[in-house]
Amino acid sequence: MSVTVPAGFRAAGVTAGLKPSGKPDVALVVNDGPLQVAAGVFTSNRIVAAPVVWSRQAVADGIAHAVVLNSGGANACTGPEGFGDAHATAEHTGTVLDTSPGDVLVCSTGLIGERLPMDALLAGVSAAADALTPDGGPAAATAIMTTDTVSKQATVAGDGWSLGGMAKGAGMLAPGLATMLVVLTTDAVLTAEQADAALRAATRTTFDRVDSDGCMSTNDTVLLLVSGASDVTPDPADFTEKLRALSDDLARQLVADAEGASHDIAVTVANASSEDAAVAVARAITRSNLFKAAVFGNDPNWGRVLAAAGTVPEEVAPYDPALIDVAINGVQVCRAGGVGDPREGVDLASAREVRVDVDLHAGQATATIWTNDLTHDYVHENSAYST
Amino acid sequence: MSVTVPAGFRAAGVTAGLKPSGKPDVALVVNDGPLQVAAGVFTSNRIVAAPVVWSRQAVADGIAHAVVLNSGGANACTGPEGFGDAHATAEHTGTVLDTSPGDVLVCSTGLIGERLPMDALLAGVSAAADALTPDGGPAAATAIMTTDTVSKQATVAGDGWSLGGMAKGAGMLAPGLATMLVVLTTDAVLTAEQADAALRAATRTTFDRVDSDGCMSTNDTVLLLVSGASDVTPDPADFTEKLRALSDDLARQLVADAEGASHDIAVTVANASSEDAAVAVARAITRSNLFKAAVFGNDPNWGRVLAAAGTVPEEVAPYDPALIDVAINGVQVCRAGGVGDPREGVDLASAREVRVDVDLHAGQATATIWTNDLTHDYVHENSAYST
Repeated sequence: MSVTVPAGFRAAGVTAGLKPSGKPDVALVVNDGPLQVAAGVFTSNRIVAAPVVWSRQAVADGIAHAVVLNSGGANACTGPEGFGDAHATAEHTGTVLDTSPGDVLVCSTGLIGERLPMDALLAGVSAAADALTPDGGPAAATAIMTTDTVSKQATVAGDGWSLGGMAKGAGMLAPGLATMLVVLTTDAVLTAEQADAALRAATRTTFDRVDSDGCMSTNDTVLLLVSGASDVTPDPADFTEKLRALSDDLARQLVADAEGASHDIAVTVANASSEDAAVAVARAITRSNLFKAAVFGNDPNWGRVLAAAGTVPEEVAPYDPALIDVAINGVQVCRAGGVGDPREGVDLASAREVRVDVDLHAGQATATIWTNDLTHDYVHENSAYST
Repeated sequence: MSVTVPAGFRAAGVTAGLKPSGKPDVALVVNDGPLQVAAGVFTSNRIVAAPVVWSRQAVADGIAHAVVLNSGGANACTGPEGFGDAHATAEHTGTVLDTSPGDVLVCSTGLIGERLPMDALLAGVSAAADALTPDGGPAAATAIMTTDTVSKQATVAGDGWSLGGMAKGAGMLAPGLATMLVVLTTDAVLTAEQADAALRAATRTTFDRVDSDGCMSTNDTVLLLVSGASDVTPDPADFTEKLRALSDDLARQLVADAEGASHDIAVTVANASSEDAAVAVARAITRSNLFKAAVFGNDPNWGRVLAAAGTVPEEVAPYDPALIDVAINGVQVCRAGGVGDPREGVDLASAREVRVDVDLHAGQATATIWTNDLTHDYVHENSAYST
């Protein structure tokens, strides 16, 4: 399962004692080649954790041998000492795997502003290296969980090659205990440039369009490791599409498991003047606390949808407010900016999934952003469990 | 008290039956002159309520005789019929006051997407006209309340002239039942241009810097009525400063009464490269659900302050993340982007007011944005009481 489905990969997950709960907290994914191609996309937050600084640099040459991940501490806002800790983690992993530290990527998730207990972490890395197996994907996926209630794994089969992936939520879903970390693997044959282009294309419409509370983590990381062990060179467009499908599967798993959520909400903005315009309007709606609280109350409050859409500047998304239509779970509650069908026709109480369709009548572009409702549990999780 | 403290004004508040609660819901403020100068600032939301469309147009000539306000219905997203209702309200008010409808400003607050019960509203306007008195300010201030627990009024004395004001919260504070409406009055002698300039300057650093959940209402309106009845022409700078003080007083009352809040939070960003940069960073922090939930949990979580600051693009606010200091209620919890004093030194549990001071070390500009914490009551108010 998971990251070890493609040939050429081993993985492990162990308990190093970083989490007070005593649950697994250190994961290792190793690419045994023959290729050791890698690509990464990272948080766009300007305040980035030490492991992000390290990994961004380490993956820049398109090569990585291994990824070491820990839960139980984000190693963010920890100053030069924190960067030293990330560096030391890569050094130690390089030593136990007999590879260059510059080919080891590092990911961390947990509380911001605290140093990692390095003795425990490095011992955990050694134990993980000893535990590496070609079916260690599920163990690794479990060891990166924080507030996740289930581990997230997915696979997609290509023509003679395959893709695997694991994720933990979630940067913008239940970020009280941090971050979205994703590791994707493939045994297809790709160049570093192809891997990078495919990863950017796939994340742009999947992980980048999951937005629970508008908060970008300091640690968000999505990595792609390429072993080439299948010896098959895929059609680039086909590879990108399958990588997008894998990413979409994992992104949807993150939404479905977002802590404290009682509804998954897909906001689709159609007939916008551009894709950027559609994304901007959809994002404004998914970031409206008022709208998200209304959904929690099973209230198909289209007025809050419009009020949120109206905050997007005209130069970003030109449209005529008097033309906007809104449908919620298929019922057209707003027609031409005014009252539409009776909203009593919308039953949100019995629906986990809420589909909000906004028609701007301003062009032909469409985009969907996924989010969750704003619930008591969200407030509870993020107020009670952070220190 | 309130809007009737300056000479030349009468006001009233009556119960028209728009609210299911049977509380007062129609207010009237009349300027008996000799001047009937007026200025207004309105929501920057592109989706605006019918009364905003009407009043923006009606105040454009710098003249207004009266303001009629209703709670119990926002008259937003109600199409051409809704605009007709706002127009009819102005027409009826003009008739009973024997003035031009074009000199009557209209404000509404309540649920979006429903027509107003016009028979009840117009009967209420007639009753309010009959009830007008030179000490009717408090009754008017009470009639515009929605989720407000207390009415908001303030006065400032000038040298031979005075200022009065009333407000209801709150566009961005407890917007479940809508909007920020503010009426300010003065008996000073001002031209329309002076009134407009003073109002824009005063709101820019007060009402515009109160931001509870980042949601802009479709109805937000701040009006200034000038009677000139004191016959005193103030120094323009002195008038603007006193109008700013009045606005600040009312804005702070809105924050203090925001529904469901347990903390008032002042985020001050200092040593920014420009005032716009300071505002952008402060606003990003005040819009972070994670940070606001942490404050509810009495957790001085400076990591979430930094993570929010990091979402502001560098071209908007240049700064070096490695230099940022953060103090919470005077305790410097973050120094140079890393761990500062022990945050156990910050006791938020016994503090209603939380002061977050962020030093960017990037220039000399400063700005403060006020907000509230994200609480269970916020979710409750905005999920349960909207339909």
